[in-house]
Amino acid sequence: MSQQQFLTLLSDFGDRDEYVAVMKGVIAQINPDIRVIDITHQIPPQNITAARFCLMNAYPYFPLGTVHVAVVDPGVGGKRRAIALQLEQRFLVGPDNGLFTGILTHHPIIAVVELTNPQYWRNCELSNTFHGRDIFAPVGAHLSNGVPMQQLGREIDPATLVTLDLPEYNQLGSDIVGRIQYIDHFGNSVTNIPGICVQGENWSLQIGGKDIKGGATYGDVAVGNAIALIGSHGWIEIAVNGGSARSDLQINWGDEVKVEIK
Amino acid sequence: MSQQQFLTLLSDFGDRDEYVAVMKGVIAQINPDIRVIDITHQIPPQNITAARFCLMNAYPYFPLGTVHVAVVDPGVGGKRRAIALQLEQRFLVGPDNGLFTGILTHHPIIAVVELTNPQYWRNCELSNTFHGRDIFAPVGAHLSNGVPMQQLGREIDPATLVTLDLPEYNQLGSDIVGRIQYIDHFGNSVTNIPGICVQGENWSLQIGGKDIKGGATYGDVAVGNAIALIGSHGWIEIAVNGGSARSDLQINWGDEVKVEIK
Amino acid sequence: MSQQQFLTLLSDFGDRDEYVAVMKGVIAQINPDIRVIDITHQIPPQNITAARFCLMNAYPYFPLGTVHVAVVDPGVGGKRRAIALQLEQRFLVGPDNGLFTGILTHHPIIAVVELTNPQYWRNCELSNTFHGRDIFAPVGAHLSNGVPMQQLGREIDPATLVTLDLPEYNQLGSDIVGRIQYIDHFGNSVTNIPGICVQGENWSLQIGGKDIKGGATYGDVAVGNAIALIGSHGWIEIAVNGGSARSDLQINWGDEVKVEIK
Repeated sequence: MSQQQFLTLLSDFGDRDEYVAVMKGVIAQINPDIRVIDITHQIPPQNITAARFCLMNAYPYFPLGTVHVAVVDPGVGGKRRAIALQLEQRFLVGPDNGLFTGILTHHPIIAVVELTNPQYWRNCELSNTFHGRDIFAPVGAHLSNGVPMQQLGREIDPATLVTLDLPEYNQLGSDIVGRIQYIDHFGNSVTNIPGICVQGENWSLQIGGKDIKGGATYGDVAVGNAIALIGSHGWIEIAVNGGSARSDLQINWGDEVKVEIK
Repeated sequence: MSQQQFLTLLSDFGDRDEYVAVMKGVIAQINPDIRVIDITHQIPPQNITAARFCLMNAYPYFPLGTVHVAVVDPGVGGKRRAIALQLEQRFLVGPDNGLFTGILTHHPIIAVVELTNPQYWRNCELSNTFHGRDIFAPVGAHLSNGVPMQQLGREIDPATLVTLDLPEYNQLGSDIVGRIQYIDHFGNSVTNIPGICVQGENWSLQIGGKDIKGGATYGDVAVGNAIALIGSHGWIEIAVNGGSARSDLQINWGDEVKVEIK
Repeated sequence: MSQQQFLTLLSDFGDRDEYVAVMKGVIAQINPDIRVIDITHQIPPQNITAARFCLMNAYPYFPLGTVHVAVVDPGVGGKRRAIALQLEQRFLVGPDNGLFTGILTHHPIIAVVELTNPQYWRNCELSNTFHGRDIFAPVGAHLSNGVPMQQLGREIDPATLVTLDLPEYNQLGSDIVGRIQYIDHFGNSVTNIPGICVQGENWSLQIGGKDIKGGATYGDVAVGNAIALIGSHGWIEIAVNGGSARSDLQINWGDEVKVEIK
């Protein structure tokens, strides 16, 4: 059995500057053998909601033991806490700002610490603007080396963690009213309504006055036409076959949608 | 001799979402020791022609035994076949839509199977929209682990593969008429005319009413001037020294070009 | 102690085409066990100043023995020299165009050679447009394999290297006048004035007729407000809390700034 370990990185740092590489260099100095996988660094600047979505959807696919470092951190240098969480055979490292709420809804917390022990930070004066380099990357690398959670800082009460909850969807008679929670690279627009709500049903979706047929796959409609379906994340999403639902249907983050079961 | 194995990924998934990372996580669970190299994930959405071009040009540079997984897949969830191809010490995995035609022109097929055996898919209900995660990534990882082609599904006749052929260039007297087949990040505009056609000749190129000198390197003309040369892929391409041929000369994909041998 | 070796890549190749992957394939064929880390490939085309900045800031964070390959190379195919430099337990490989000046200001050169020995190039006819693939990537991989510098070509006099010096900042009474040397993904605008000039002082900064308070961290001002602070690179930079200094304050590369110590 391979002992290869993995660490993932997610941030809003983009790909134009050296910031992500600097975190990888810091990690390589602490654990040269770990394999680092980028989730994305193109989270819209300081958009914790988008970060929470991507992280929650990526998390289940990684090997046991993976350390997930996430740095979308508008409060850097201020009073927000830096934290590490231990779940069942996985670790999360980042700011305490709700980034991890999506995961924590589904996975019990085994331990959570505030990162107060500078022995596991980068060996330097702490910056006020780049804790990804100075705290989160080194702590992630040390965790992957087997440093126990309790050495990283003081244990805190999970009930005190900042949470970031999605607006809920609502059942109105046989209709379900929800919102667009994420729009992807293709313009596919993901609602906050779980696919399970329509599984096996005959259904349609309304958004911005348009009525969109519920189906199973992009090809169920002709090229250029819109379709609503259960996306690969398990949420109901809106797509245009061969096009972009975002631009073709003028959809924005947060737009209201209504699902009708027939 | 190192036993390090490689798998490449190419897609139109972009870099904003977690899709590529999810494929890497799935691969890591099946073969934790493989090294994954991204060819690009910025293929214009559903542009099989661009994907075919990048893959064909990247393919020759990888170590023997590399598995190339390519997912530009407008037909996902429909009737298109999912396939794996074995070439001389290399493997290709992806949809049967012509993506691999560029490579197959130059390399004989040893075996080709349709991916019908769910034992080598991701262990889950198959989605209708993300076969990169559910079929292609896991099959690529299993191939790298030494699973024989024949276990992945039923062998199919190579003559039945979907092909995507480029428009051909034509000899008209001493002129050669072709088209722009690809425009890169720098705006360099690559024709479908092989460089060998002009090697050692005195030549020029016409596009959109402009006459462009044939040369050897960007610096053969002053900064801001256009030049035609044999690009690093081996095709005749149009560049602007210190600028972008695409925007400076208003070139589009598919534009006609004429090469004149003097 | 792990023997894992690292090679970094920096270029202006972007992420749409197969160019970066081709360099990685070439490296994998020569040293399959090396770990490759991208610094960035989004340097604005042919912008040696931006490349110099990113490389200088990333360099210190990598393990000893790392080989840094950098290809922003407007003079490719012309008379500029291809070089490799040995510093204290690090190597630099790229064109001789000033790309490395930022690093060389701080680190003594142990050896520098012009890459004249084709035995360590890619085994092929040399292209006139892609020395990243044909010379720099293979030479970097051979260096990581332990090939001695002296075999790569002829030693040259460090005094003959092309340099790229930043405009200097100037002390005018108690004021310091400098320029914007870099603007990052967030719109944070980095001056060429070292943070040490204002450390422990009460200070402010003027740019484009606006007066900006000197502080310590983004959160020192309300969301939407500008602040000047010592950035994570150690330079004085201008940021907008929750916004973009570049677009909110209309800042451009090269703009003049004045720092006032109170």
